[in-house]
Amino acid sequence: MRRMRLVIIGGDAAGMSAASQARKRLGRDVLEIVAFERGHFTSYSACGIPYWIGGVVAERDALVARTPDEHRKAGIQVRLRHEVTGIDLDRREVVARDLDGGGEVKTHFDHLMYAAGASPVTPDWATDRGAGIFGVQTLDDGAAIQEWLARDPAPRRAVVIGGGYIGVEMAEAMVRRGLRVTLLEKSDQPMAKTADPDMGALVRQAIEGLGIEVRTGAAVEGIDTEGGRVRAVVTPGGALPADIVLLGLGVRPNSALAEQAGLPVGATGGLRTDLRMRVEGVDGVWAAGDCVETRHLLTGRPAHVPLGTHANKQGRVAGINIGGGYATFPGVIGTAVTKVCDLEVARTGLTSKEADSAGFAYVTATVASTSRAGYYPGAETMTIKLIAERRTGTLLGAQIVGKAEAAKRIDALAVAVWNRMNVEEMTALDLSYAPPFAPVWDPVLIAARKATEAVHASL
Amino acid sequence: MRRMRLVIIGGDAAGMSAASQARKRLGRDVLEIVAFERGHFTSYSACGIPYWIGGVVAERDALVARTPDEHRKAGIQVRLRHEVTGIDLDRREVVARDLDGGGEVKTHFDHLMYAAGASPVTPDWATDRGAGIFGVQTLDDGAAIQEWLARDPAPRRAVVIGGGYIGVEMAEAMVRRGLRVTLLEKSDQPMAKTADPDMGALVRQAIEGLGIEVRTGAAVEGIDTEGGRVRAVVTPGGALPADIVLLGLGVRPNSALAEQAGLPVGATGGLRTDLRMRVEGVDGVWAAGDCVETRHLLTGRPAHVPLGTHANKQGRVAGINIGGGYATFPGVIGTAVTKVCDLEVARTGLTSKEADSAGFAYVTATVASTSRAGYYPGAETMTIKLIAERRTGTLLGAQIVGKAEAAKRIDALAVAVWNRMNVEEMTALDLSYAPPFAPVWDPVLIAARKATEAVHASL
Repeated sequence: MRRMRLVIIGGDAAGMSAASQARKRLGRDVLEIVAFERGHFTSYSACGIPYWIGGVVAERDALVARTPDEHRKAGIQVRLRHEVTGIDLDRREVVARDLDGGGEVKTHFDHLMYAAGASPVTPDWATDRGAGIFGVQTLDDGAAIQEWLARDPAPRRAVVIGGGYIGVEMAEAMVRRGLRVTLLEKSDQPMAKTADPDMGALVRQAIEGLGIEVRTGAAVEGIDTEGGRVRAVVTPGGALPADIVLLGLGVRPNSALAEQAGLPVGATGGLRTDLRMRVEGVDGVWAAGDCVETRHLLTGRPAHVPLGTHANKQGRVAGINIGGGYATFPGVIGTAVTKVCDLEVARTGLTSKEADSAGFAYVTATVASTSRAGYYPGAETMTIKLIAERRTGTLLGAQIVGKAEAAKRIDALAVAVWNRMNVEEMTALDLSYAPPFAPVWDPVLIAARKATEAVHASL
Repeated sequence: MRRMRLVIIGGDAAGMSAASQARKRLGRDVLEIVAFERGHFTSYSACGIPYWIGGVVAERDALVARTPDEHRKAGIQVRLRHEVTGIDLDRREVVARDLDGGGEVKTHFDHLMYAAGASPVTPDWATDRGAGIFGVQTLDDGAAIQEWLARDPAPRRAVVIGGGYIGVEMAEAMVRRGLRVTLLEKSDQPMAKTADPDMGALVRQAIEGLGIEVRTGAAVEGIDTEGGRVRAVVTPGGALPADIVLLGLGVRPNSALAEQAGLPVGATGGLRTDLRMRVEGVDGVWAAGDCVETRHLLTGRPAHVPLGTHANKQGRVAGINIGGGYATFPGVIGTAVTKVCDLEVARTGLTSKEADSAGFAYVTATVASTSRAGYYPGAETMTIKLIAERRTGTLLGAQIVGKAEAAKRIDALAVAVWNRMNVEEMTALDLSYAPPFAPVWDPVLIAARKATEAVHASL
């Protein structure tokens, strides 16, 4: 039998998870694996970048789960600083450019794994990349930020544009590095996509508690630079001095190359795949990670949710299938978590806004309780909000804002959403209780009780 | 309409939850509520007693969620130190003895709520109650222990008999109070009912790490007392000096009174109720808490699981139904959690032994991972063991042993067990991820992956 070749485009979570799983199932004599990565790193935690920048994590290399050499030892060829510039589906060939050495490589593939990731949304006025304006997506981005912060004289003022996860995490990192920070958010609250306004208000308090100036409803008109350095962010209300600008405006799937090759791209901009992560309608071509769209299991709609956890799962699923096994990635329910100083923020399912736009009629219930029995040392308050469908009581979504031991409670709620539980049944859930871990009614159960009352009242 | 009367036997979690829920739904003009409690306290956290004894919680009253006076203000008559000694179902009457004042009270009821709790299993050789031998079940028990520890000369050596939750928690409390502690357990590991032997070994290490001497396979033949004070615990291997003895041999439902009245008691010794907590076959008589048996949802068998969380839920359900509403308590799945020093121990579903005895064929998978991303400060190791049915992959049980942020992960697994998920589907669960909260593969997901492999290998 001819040895087959798997070509991977993109050497981070999705691509290398697929490579590893395929390698595990098919030996080197059966499958050759070649991975092209345009950056300097493989298999790193992009989610860890804000913590490295902020100094919470000391070493860049701590973020690297597996180095190129480790992959090579496992029998995966890794070509760093190689950017794939063309895919020919008929000839089953990719063309990659050597970004350092120059020149091009043409490589035949039997299987192609497209895992090109996503790029920060970058408005026209923010494209001057050498001037201290950064997106935060790759470890190379992180390295560039570190370098900029190490300049002499050191940057003193940071402006973060966009108040989502990355924006908030980077704003905190800048505070930790001693900069004065302004966070600009065009909607009327930070984390508008994560939290309902009532929960978002708690998050805003925490951000401001760090000394970060938060401006909501904020438009940006441009960025002033001088001598190759950013000077200010221009807003309708005037110029905000800035020595570094960080973009937290979300990311877009890097699907252009795939689209040029004729691969199907959905309305979200992500590649369309089936549950086995096979690109729809194309044999032997797979995709996973930030460049694909997936299915939101509550709305049934396509969704682009660029998170490391999905990228890893999807990559693993693709790799198992490439390797001759069987695995599926059914979709997502919108779970996410983050931390602002000591405030934990988590969500699963739909926010009120998302439930509205999906056409659900729903009730909400919000409760305040504590992480441990009230009398047990270290008990911290937390707020839980549940969103339940009006007619059926089906749990549609949950949000948690609190301190230590609050946010991970979202996982129990995520499993409840996943299983389409209704809030009345949830009041009987056999959750763990002991004074160091929960009040005798866990906050999750208290929330389920209140949501049940709201559902009953709505009937 | 004649005003009805609800009589409650037992003024702790189950009884007073029922009282409160009934009161919420029916006004004082419609329902009179009279609660008899033989002790001095109402609505307290029995689970908090070891922490009060150990000094982690400073004040006894911190454990009281609602005092008799607070209940009275809410329109519930509370008769402390009144022990119900007889129930006449034909005349719908209870007789209560005033333990302090003497004399008896006869009271008619329309609804009767039986919530008499449970009592520590006390072998014949341990019945000498004035001598420093204590069960740990009621707040009065806790007060008696405190008094004993305050004697002059102060007790210096404690022997704890029984290595379940209460035994282990009390052993730790004794260490905190400065006593030398020996823990005797008749089986070959502490927490034998909680954890499989491999997980139990980790627990044993932690207990011994506190300086507690653990003797497994330990039989007890009697207790030596002298001058009204315990002197030693007698074992086949010799006498163990002891100034205080604590019993952690489990509890038995206080169902004798109910049985005498002709109420149905099951094989577990607990009262039999339906899902609405109505005593089976008897109109207007309800029961809840440590005195009832419930249903284990995985085995379908009756189970006696005396935990505060169930007592509260069952009491609430009874109260809603008494008050004219509708609520059910479907059963339990065996979730529990505790802490030994900084080691967290949690379980849900069935242990291997329980799965054996219920006749399941199963596979197990054990993984070690971390609470946070490995590179994030404060990441602690944890071990998760899953038990999955062989043919179907259905999750039958889970155990977690770890440090901070480990044990509450059991709740996500409990919701999975509750919903009869299979471990393969669980690998796709959308659990929360960010570096301060989990590795990119949460330990729960890693365990699900390994269990899936074990299921596949068993097919």
